[in-house]
Amino acid sequence: MKSKAIFYHAGCPVCLSAEENVARSLDPNRYELEIIHLGNSRDKIAEAKAKGVLSVPALILDGQPFHINFGAAIADLE
Amino acid sequence: MKSKAIFYHAGCPVCLSAEENVARSLDPNRYELEIIHLGNSRDKIAEAKAKGVLSVPALILDGQPFHINFGAAIADLE
Repeated sequence: MKSKAIFYHAGCPVCLSAEENVARSLDPNRYELEIIHLGNSRDKIAEAKAKGVLSVPALILDGQPFHINFGAAIADLE
Repeated sequence: MKSKAIFYHAGCPVCLSAEENVARSLDPNRYELEIIHLGNSRDKIAEAKAKGVLSVPALILDGQPFHINFGAAIADLE
């Protein structure tokens, strides 16, 4: 069974670079990738925070948050 | 032809988590992964800096540096 990977972003250039290069480079045989734009889906911000996301872009793998470079603080999206 | 992915770390817990979850989750059909421990291979620190690495753990994909969470500043390894 595939694990779920969630990529949270906010459409910023740093986010798009991380999406293109890191999130989309995950092994598709092992991960099912969901991409969430927190600027457009503001109702998901609380969910992201609950998973430990402090800034975007961030990738959740096996429940752990990995912040990739720095685009924006989650507090600035609220 | 596979692209080269380089994962720079310094053996810290944050580094090991990023290695296990992010670096080793890359699509093996697309990336050939090289893992470099900058604490043990101090001669590679200049190379990492030249690639834009500011802190570890960091992953180089297609020549671009992606800093994953924060373990240690590269300056603290020199």
